[in-house]
Amino acid sequence: MIGENLVNVRHTHPLIHNITNYVTVNDVANVLLATGASPIMADDMEEMDDIVSICQALVINTGTLNQRTIASMLYAGKKSNELQHVTVLDPVGVGASRLRSRTAEAFVQEVRFDAIKGNISEIKSLFLGTNSTSGVDANSVDSVTEENKIEMATIIKKIAQEMQTIIIATGAIDIVADANKAYLITNGRPEMSYVTGTGCQLGALVTAFITANQDNALEAAAEAVMMMGIAGELAWSSQAGNITYRNHMIDEIFKMTPETITQYANYEVI
Amino acid sequence: MIGENLVNVRHTHPLIHNITNYVTVNDVANVLLATGASPIMADDMEEMDDIVSICQALVINTGTLNQRTIASMLYAGKKSNELQHVTVLDPVGVGASRLRSRTAEAFVQEVRFDAIKGNISEIKSLFLGTNSTSGVDANSVDSVTEENKIEMATIIKKIAQEMQTIIIATGAIDIVADANKAYLITNGRPEMSYVTGTGCQLGALVTAFITANQDNALEAAAEAVMMMGIAGELAWSSQAGNITYRNHMIDEIFKMTPETITQYANYEVI
Amino acid sequence: MIGENLVNVRHTHPLIHNITNYVTVNDVANVLLATGASPIMADDMEEMDDIVSICQALVINTGTLNQRTIASMLYAGKKSNELQHVTVLDPVGVGASRLRSRTAEAFVQEVRFDAIKGNISEIKSLFLGTNSTSGVDANSVDSVTEENKIEMATIIKKIAQEMQTIIIATGAIDIVADANKAYLITNGRPEMSYVTGTGCQLGALVTAFITANQDNALEAAAEAVMMMGIAGELAWSSQAGNITYRNHMIDEIFKMTPETITQYANYEVI
Repeated sequence: MIGENLVNVRHTHPLIHNITNYVTVNDVANVLLATGASPIMADDMEEMDDIVSICQALVINTGTLNQRTIASMLYAGKKSNELQHVTVLDPVGVGASRLRSRTAEAFVQEVRFDAIKGNISEIKSLFLGTNSTSGVDANSVDSVTEENKIEMATIIKKIAQEMQTIIIATGAIDIVADANKAYLITNGRPEMSYVTGTGCQLGALVTAFITANQDNALEAAAEAVMMMGIAGELAWSSQAGNITYRNHMIDEIFKMTPETITQYANYEVI
Repeated sequence: MIGENLVNVRHTHPLIHNITNYVTVNDVANVLLATGASPIMADDMEEMDDIVSICQALVINTGTLNQRTIASMLYAGKKSNELQHVTVLDPVGVGASRLRSRTAEAFVQEVRFDAIKGNISEIKSLFLGTNSTSGVDANSVDSVTEENKIEMATIIKKIAQEMQTIIIATGAIDIVADANKAYLITNGRPEMSYVTGTGCQLGALVTAFITANQDNALEAAAEAVMMMGIAGELAWSSQAGNITYRNHMIDEIFKMTPETITQYANYEVI
Repeated sequence: MIGENLVNVRHTHPLIHNITNYVTVNDVANVLLATGASPIMADDMEEMDDIVSICQALVINTGTLNQRTIASMLYAGKKSNELQHVTVLDPVGVGASRLRSRTAEAFVQEVRFDAIKGNISEIKSLFLGTNSTSGVDANSVDSVTEENKIEMATIIKKIAQEMQTIIIATGAIDIVADANKAYLITNGRPEMSYVTGTGCQLGALVTAFITANQDNALEAAAEAVMMMGIAGELAWSSQAGNITYRNHMIDEIFKMTPETITQYANYEVI
C-alpha cells in the first residue's frame, strides 16, 4: 500500500552503494539519509567486490562518467547481479554524447537492472534511439501530456517488458511501469527543474525504496517518485530561490510521513 | 545597457559546458540555473567533441585539475575555438603550484579565450609572472585600492590588449577590461571571502552572460560581476553564518531582476 | 585553555591542504573558512610538492579514494613529514573494503601522523583488526557508553602510545587521547548522524586546530571535537530537516566564540 514502502525503508535502513557524479553527490548522500537509508560512495575498481558485497543495493549514475569509473560501474553491476542485489541504472545525459549512449547501452546489455530511471528524453534516447536529448535536461518535444499519456505509458510498458525491468520516465507526468502496470504520477512542480540533482536524488531514492520492498518493487518505485514530487510541492515558496528550494526539498523528505504521501499522492494506474 | 544582458540570458538559456573542480561544482550548476542558463559537467576525453558541440560555451576551471582532466580541458578548448563557441578560462590557483601555472600558460598559448577571470593575484601570476598567490585566495599585497585603481586598470587593459581577450580581475574593486575600456566595480562585500566558490560561480556566470550577449561581451561580463556582487550585498545578514550566506547569494541571483542590477550597480568606466 | 585554541585559529588563518572525497568536500572547505582557516584541495601527484609546501598542514581523507589519489596521498604525507608540517589522517570507511584497510595501514606505517581521527569502528578496525565497520558509519556494537568509557579510553590511550600520535575516536562519547591523557567528550546530538560529512568536517577542523596550537595539540584537538558537537547542539531544531541542520551547524561554527565553547563544553579528562 502506498505509504508503507517508506515505513519499510525507515525500518530496514538499506545500505546503498552509489557510483555517481561529483556534481550532485552530496545531495544524493543527504537525501538517502533523509529517507532513512545509508549511502556509501565508492568507485575504485579494487574495492568494487567488497563494497558491493556489504551493501544491499547498487545505483549506477552516469553523470560525469569517465573511462575509469565506467569500468568500475560495469564490474560492480555484474557483481551486484551475481549477489542478487538490487541494481538500478540512472543513465544521466544519455544521448548527449556517443560515449554516454554506448556506455548506457553496454550496461543494459550486460547488467540486469531492477529499475532504469531517466527523464523521458533519456529513456527515449536509450530505448527508442531518438536523440532529442539536450544536455542533461529533458527536451520539451518529449513531454508527456494529458493528451499523449496513455500512448506514452503503453510505450514505456513495452520497453519494461522487453527489458524485464521497471522503467521510470520522469517529466511533468512521471511514468513508472513494468510490463503489466503503469503509474502516471503528477506530483511535483515545474520549478524543480531550476535545482540541479533532483533526478539523481530520485534515482537513489528509487533504489532505497525497491531494496526495502523487494516483493513490491513497482509500487515502491512509484512511491519514491510520488514522495520526491510531494517534497517539491511542500518545499516550494515563491519567496525563496533555487538553493533554498533544494534544501527544503531534502528537509521535507527528512520529515516525510506515510500519511503525507497518502494525502498528497496524485496518480492513476493503467 | 546594464540589466539587459541578464534579460538575454533568461531568454536564450545558454547551455554551458563546465570542466571544473569537485569542490564547488554543485554551486556552479545551481548558480547557472539560478541565472537562467543550463549547466552540463563533463570531463572525459572521449565525450569532449560531442559535449562541446551541443553546448554554446565552455568554461575551463583549473581547481582540482589532474593529468586526465588537463588533457580534456585543452582538447575541449581547441574544439570550442574551432566551433567559434564562447570559451572562458578560470585559472583557479595559478601560482599555487608549477603544475597550475604551466597548465594555465599552455592554455592561454593554445586556446583563444573570450574572457579570462581570476582573482587579482591569479591574473598577475599568470600574465606578469609575479608569484604572491597563497592557495586559492587573493593575496592582500595585490589589492586594488582607490589609490592604485587607475594604474591597475591600465595594466589589466594592456594584458587584455596583448591577449586579445576580456580580463576579469576580482578583488575589493573588480576590474573588467578589454583593450579599450575598463569597468571598475565595487559591488560585493568582504564577507564573500568566507564562502568557498564565489569565484567559480562568477566564472560560470560570466560565461553565460557573454554567450547570451556576444555583440556586447565586455558589458555582459561586467554585468555578471556586478550581479554577483549585488547578490552578495543583498544576501548578507550579520545574524547568519557562511553557509546560509552562500545559499542566499544563489537565491538572490535566482530572484535578480534587471532593475535590481541597475539600482545597485556601483561602477565607473575608464 | 579551552576556548583559546579557536582564538589562535582565527588569528593565524592556517592554510590546510585537503586530499579528500568528492562527497563532502564542499562542506569541508566551508567549515574550514567558518572556523577561520583557509582550505586548498589538490590531488594531482605533480603538484603535491608545491601544494604541501605552501600549506601549513595536510589532512588525508580516504573517502572515495582511488589508485591515483592513493599515490598522491602517500607522497603528500611523506612530503608533509619532511617539512615537519602537521599531518592528519581521517581513514573514512576503513574496514569497509580491503583496499581501504590496506591503504590506511600503509599510511600509518609510512607516514607519521599528528592525529588520526575516525569513528570508533574505524579506529578499532585500523588498530585492533576488528571488522564491524558497516559502510562509512560507526557500528552500534562499538558504542562507547557510560559503562565502558574508562576501558575504551584506556584502549585508545594505548593505541595513541603505540602510534605516538593523538587518536580521536568519535561516537556518542568522543575520545581524544594521547599516551597520557584522554578527553571524554559528550557534546553533540544523535541527529548529527543524519547529515553526511560531519566526520569529514571534524577531521579538517582538528587539523586546523592542531596547526594553530602546535604546543597544545591534544587540547586543541579536543576543543575542535567539542566545538563540532556544540555546533550540533546549537543548530538542532526539531522543525528542520537534515540539510538545514547541516547548514546551521556550519553557520554555528562561523559564529562560534571561545565563550560559547567554554560555556557548553561537556567533558572529563582521565
